[in-house]
Amino acid sequence: MIRPAELIQRKRDGGELEPDELAELVLGYARDEVPDYQMAAFCMAVFFRGLSPAETFALTDAMVRSGDTLDLASALGRTVVDKHSTGGVGDKTSIAVGPVVAACGVPFGKMSGRGLGHTGGTLDKLEAIPGFRVELSEEEFVAQVREVGLAIIGQTGDLVPADKRLYGLRDVTATVDNVQLIAASIMSKKIAAGADAIVLDVKVGDGAFMKTLEDARTLARTMIELGERAGRRVACLLTDMDQPLGRAVGNALELREARATLRGEGPSDFTELVLSASAHLLAFSDLGIDEAEGRRRAEATLGDGSALERYERWIRAQGGDPSEDVLPQAPVVRPVEAPTGGHVHALRALPVGIAALELGAGRVRKDDAIDHAVGVVCMRKRGDAVQPGEALAELHAPDEDAATASAEAVLAAYELGPEAPPERPIVLDVVT
Amino acid sequence: MIRPAELIQRKRDGGELEPDELAELVLGYARDEVPDYQMAAFCMAVFFRGLSPAETFALTDAMVRSGDTLDLASALGRTVVDKHSTGGVGDKTSIAVGPVVAACGVPFGKMSGRGLGHTGGTLDKLEAIPGFRVELSEEEFVAQVREVGLAIIGQTGDLVPADKRLYGLRDVTATVDNVQLIAASIMSKKIAAGADAIVLDVKVGDGAFMKTLEDARTLARTMIELGERAGRRVACLLTDMDQPLGRAVGNALELREARATLRGEGPSDFTELVLSASAHLLAFSDLGIDEAEGRRRAEATLGDGSALERYERWIRAQGGDPSEDVLPQAPVVRPVEAPTGGHVHALRALPVGIAALELGAGRVRKDDAIDHAVGVVCMRKRGDAVQPGEALAELHAPDEDAATASAEAVLAAYELGPEAPPERPIVLDVVT
Repeated sequence: MIRPAELIQRKRDGGELEPDELAELVLGYARDEVPDYQMAAFCMAVFFRGLSPAETFALTDAMVRSGDTLDLASALGRTVVDKHSTGGVGDKTSIAVGPVVAACGVPFGKMSGRGLGHTGGTLDKLEAIPGFRVELSEEEFVAQVREVGLAIIGQTGDLVPADKRLYGLRDVTATVDNVQLIAASIMSKKIAAGADAIVLDVKVGDGAFMKTLEDARTLARTMIELGERAGRRVACLLTDMDQPLGRAVGNALELREARATLRGEGPSDFTELVLSASAHLLAFSDLGIDEAEGRRRAEATLGDGSALERYERWIRAQGGDPSEDVLPQAPVVRPVEAPTGGHVHALRALPVGIAALELGAGRVRKDDAIDHAVGVVCMRKRGDAVQPGEALAELHAPDEDAATASAEAVLAAYELGPEAPPERPIVLDVVT
Repeated sequence: MIRPAELIQRKRDGGELEPDELAELVLGYARDEVPDYQMAAFCMAVFFRGLSPAETFALTDAMVRSGDTLDLASALGRTVVDKHSTGGVGDKTSIAVGPVVAACGVPFGKMSGRGLGHTGGTLDKLEAIPGFRVELSEEEFVAQVREVGLAIIGQTGDLVPADKRLYGLRDVTATVDNVQLIAASIMSKKIAAGADAIVLDVKVGDGAFMKTLEDARTLARTMIELGERAGRRVACLLTDMDQPLGRAVGNALELREARATLRGEGPSDFTELVLSASAHLLAFSDLGIDEAEGRRRAEATLGDGSALERYERWIRAQGGDPSEDVLPQAPVVRPVEAPTGGHVHALRALPVGIAALELGAGRVRKDDAIDHAVGVVCMRKRGDAVQPGEALAELHAPDEDAATASAEAVLAAYELGPEAPPERPIVLDVVT
């Protein structure tokens, strides 16, 4: 029988908890035996004191044990891979990586989430497709990964209930920003969802949770250690989120861009991230190839139409119509023109994400409705030249007033200068 | 409309809250609009970041405003004084100070609390008296202070409900130990209870909440500032709690000792504390005398029988029988003998308090019943000489087994040495 107040006090005073104490705390919380207020105080103590690697693993493991788990490897007799991003502006990577990897013959099974605030969620983007079902049963999920090689669905209700509850609590108690709690939250979901190998895309910069490369590296190392303790192979790409990923920000707009990328016509930064993530996933797979060979095979799928074909099979399998024509279009499309000429020195991701949110592409509160058609397309990105009066961006708005309001915000996200800024790669570092 | 998560985050990150923000948080909490879990996270952030003087006063003031307040000065047309202790082992000071002050013609009106853990509560001690009523209405309280000059009652239900709720929350979330929160809790109750002048007895040492003189001074200064901001006169005595106060620990035992002290036959440390606290209260009163004169008058009441007489009038006014004979007596009384001779170098208060608790004198949980008869009488205290086989202490136990169990604990609380230790006064410092 644990006494939560004692555990809170020990953590508060800088002590370390035993794995079984942490497990009792978390599982007691999931069973409603430990109240929210004690868990809130504990999380705030963790914010100030941190968790040791052993504590972080015990927390993660307990969260996994709080609900059901999938064992995709046993169900499929194959190594199943998964990819996860910490969330950024314009991040439609999974929607392109899934088909590329599946087209290379490696099963890709992913449970994804919805967006809140300035970052969108993969499920919301997929729901821009008429008919697309994100709620599959576990059996349907496994069957589709087996038959189509690919499924992206919403988290099932019984997976990691402790994390769901804890995250909701942290969100309203200012205890989200702690690297061990973030790592435990992400990795518990990945471990419970059953993939053997996971590539994590840790966003760094203005529009991301991790503002500095150093913080991102710490999070990456923490997550890799958690994965390895749980017997999973994990690699982390640290990728640039000072500016939006690709050009499109907004659900249907991003789907179009993902689709274009799958036929080899995507923006260079997004294409590079898709290929890099796919290469790491293929190297973790049971194909027995290295990353360089993985990258060659991934590139081939963009050129030979097999990635796009797999995308279409996948969308149909989940009840959607994969053609571009059915995607919703915003009634008002208007350019944001460059007031002067020059080069784009910066295009801050956060204000672009907020502009898309305010156009209706995202949610401020959990039950807000989303307008799948609206958003922002960044025609010019860092390093691009622009003449006065040329379009920096294109607004897809529900009406003229909304377009006018967001035009100012998007323009303010741009910094122009006379010379091109130094180049900055999309993949800043890889931690394995 | 406040957003509690933002206030929590600001405090977490070392920022300062505006007085109206703190008021909204506390009053929202009292109205059930701010949930326990946000208040728990806030308190833990305060544990790490502290509160500024302005924040501490805003918190105190909001707690006072969360419920009813008394204005004793207006009700009585007199300056009313009050005395409060931060809680220690064997602390029956209010029970003696009240009659002394009242016998000097100064009204003394106090709301007191119950004990939890190793420190006893004044109400529990008074309830050792058959018939004694601690629950008086506000009207009865005011009338008794007017007529008898003295009343000690339980806190009425509508006074400082925010503190009651917050203290309960802090108790189970390891957020009690913060000097500003402690000061706000104590002073909100004192301010709401309506006395104009307050003497605070801040215990320091092994058996007290404040372990060092420096911590006690910080708490004292914080409370004095809070009182002055609220227009009250406050003095703090910092008093020794390395060893129990007086000799008796346990409800009826302590009442006997208080009674003996009122006729001038009390232990020297306890008598000194009663006189010192009374002198400060009399100097704050409307008698227009200084502390030295206050002390002379207080001493006189112990010699001329007027303090004891006032005690008896008071106890009868609240329905009790003031004679010693009616106090309950434990069935087993047994000495703890000194294994060797020498001088008492230390008599640790905490283990003595715990021994009394385990004999049944206190509560482990809030709804535990109390045995008013049992406890420990420390026959020898620091500096006293003892021969081998002489009694160090006397156990008043419910049965032989309980006596045997606590004998060991009490013996272990004593440290004997060949020489007398340096003297240490009961009043270590006075902060005004």
